Amino acid sequence: MDPRVERHAELIVDHCVDIQENDDVYLSAGTVAEDLVVALHAELGKRGANPLLSWSNSAASRAYHREMSADDYTLNEHSRAAMEAADALIAIRGDENTAETSDVPPENLSAAQRANQEIQEVRPDRWVGTQYPAPGNAQKAEMSTEEYEAFVWNAVNKDWAAQHEHQQQLVEILDDADDVRIKSGESTDVTMNISGMNAVNDDGRKNLPGGEVFTAPVPDSVEGHVTFDKPVMYLGREINDAELTFENGEVVDYSAGQNEDALGAILDTDEGARRLGELGIGMNRDIDQFTYNMLFDEKMGDTVHMAVGRAIDDCVPEDGDVEGNESATHVDMIVDMSEDSFIEVDGEVVQRDGTFRFEDGFEE
Amino acid sequence: MDPRVERHAELIVDHCVDIQENDDVYLSAGTVAEDLVVALHAELGKRGANPLLSWSNSAASRAYHREMSADDYTLNEHSRAAMEAADALIAIRGDENTAETSDVPPENLSAAQRANQEIQEVRPDRWVGTQYPAPGNAQKAEMSTEEYEAFVWNAVNKDWAAQHEHQQQLVEILDDADDVRIKSGESTDVTMNISGMNAVNDDGRKNLPGGEVFTAPVPDSVEGHVTFDKPVMYLGREINDAELTFENGEVVDYSAGQNEDALGAILDTDEGARRLGELGIGMNRDIDQFTYNMLFDEKMGDTVHMAVGRAIDDCVPEDGDVEGNESATHVDMIVDMSEDSFIEVDGEVVQRDGTFRFEDGFEE
Repeated sequence: MDPRVERHAELIVDHCVDIQENDDVYLSAGTVAEDLVVALHAELGKRGANPLLSWSNSAASRAYHREMSADDYTLNEHSRAAMEAADALIAIRGDENTAETSDVPPENLSAAQRANQEIQEVRPDRWVGTQYPAPGNAQKAEMSTEEYEAFVWNAVNKDWAAQHEHQQQLVEILDDADDVRIKSGESTDVTMNISGMNAVNDDGRKNLPGGEVFTAPVPDSVEGHVTFDKPVMYLGREINDAELTFENGEVVDYSAGQNEDALGAILDTDEGARRLGELGIGMNRDIDQFTYNMLFDEKMGDTVHMAVGRAIDDCVPEDGDVEGNESATHVDMIVDMSEDSFIEVDGEVVQRDGTFRFEDGFEE
Repeated sequence: MDPRVERHAELIVDHCVDIQENDDVYLSAGTVAEDLVVALHAELGKRGANPLLSWSNSAASRAYHREMSADDYTLNEHSRAAMEAADALIAIRGDENTAETSDVPPENLSAAQRANQEIQEVRPDRWVGTQYPAPGNAQKAEMSTEEYEAFVWNAVNKDWAAQHEHQQQLVEILDDADDVRIKSGESTDVTMNISGMNAVNDDGRKNLPGGEVFTAPVPDSVEGHVTFDKPVMYLGREINDAELTFENGEVVDYSAGQNEDALGAILDTDEGARRLGELGIGMNRDIDQFTYNMLFDEKMGDTVHMAVGRAIDDCVPEDGDVEGNESATHVDMIVDMSEDSFIEVDGEVVQRDGTFRFEDGFEE
């Protein structure tokens, strides 16, 4: 077996979900990820844990959802029961064809998600989402499968302790910070307040790869305009050159070069969908290109991302004075910070053209 | 898609487990059965049912069980919870390699079964086990895959109403019967009493294919000797020319031409393993050859089978005067009845050389 697959399996089991004897592990994967599934079973066996292997099969999903009516969806009680009884969840993504459900009525997919929301809510605290380098995802990334395998496993099979230490330098800056300004060329200049919020060091536990530091803005504090340099994928549609203008935290104007109506649909989800829920800063330098996959794209070095919608719970102290943004949606959008850009924290530049103050090559 | 696959899926969903709207369906299958899985998802979607797809992966199982220790197995709580919450179970067999777990310590497989016995006990009443014509099973049957596909789908995709009617003639004979004698050549001559037991018409509901009528002997009533003409597979070993001699219902002597110790191990499982739990009569004439797969072999026309061990619950009336045999095991063994053979019920011959009294060609 490819030693990169074995390393990936070890990382999942130890670093991400810390599997112990007798843990009931809910594992979901598609056929294309079979070698990682086999490697994971060996690791689970070594630790005396109990696997339940759920088969993500997009052709079967397509066949099912095409025959369903949007009104007919009800909670999958057996899936819910299994998820609730699980001690850990390992969700492996990987597609032979990323467009497999493109001819399913989108309202059916939304209805299915709504009906099964409770399954997400009973998900165990120990969970991880990770990626298998499948041909469909390689194609989406415009790479050969072999090149994409190297890309995925370089990003995944890292020294996460070292990455944690590297990222912790930014966490300490943001934890003490009040005001953040993101400036990129003439197209992006936005400010926000993050006082009282937690900055989270994503060192590859719930997402593998990890490699970002993220926090939540005080919802009303966001001011300015942002142009997102990377396409946003939403329900299979690609939104290009999205621009948002914020006043008192709210999007007061928006446009897009392509699929502007999809951008409008995101913002119209609910009241909170017009406010920012997340500011994230990508710090995984092994992710050096955009691959149309948010699990990777948002961690890319030299980028920041902002999400309209719901704040991540970990960013908002439970008994603090501040509240994070609430919404049913959370859509990440990316700004390229590699050129003519800076991040300013409380008036001091902490990153310029992608290089941090605590790194070599930073120019004051 | 192969129309035989679509027909197979329809039969499973309607005839076997009678799927209704909102039913939570637990479906297990291996990669090799993907087209049947897709067809089943379309049928479940048409009926508004909810699938949970569990992936039977023998390579992953092998990797897992090789790393486990027999002492470490505990109940899979999440699998149990899902099974208990399910309204119906569809279990699809099918192997790329029937020997995939041949290098797993057998004590681990037994320990896993014991630890997870409870999952079987909470299985919903609506369940079916069926077969996908996979290359590994074709090889075991000594057929090409295409030939085996025809074999499986001929046996499965039958007119089950007609088969039920055909079999009902034998059910009526056996339901009123007291004494049964099975005679084949010089090697088999055994008698048993079936008074008060139910004869069950297996018309392809819990097993697909079905095609047998089975009942339970009164445990102490079995007398005589039986030679089993077809090999018995037990934990991956082939027992040939097994012979059993019964007195007062108990095996008092046994031998086998090959793997006699495995036959001994079966009989030594517990006290009930030395008594008969089932007499079955194969009536699916589309199963015209032995394929080393009990799901098919026991339904073959011109055969009877007897199982040492546990009686099937459906055969033993809940508030009757008779008790079925109890045991942890149930091992079916087959006698060829095609030549120089008869089945006698209360002194009357009801089958001679494989042909029933109620069929053309029967000679008084």
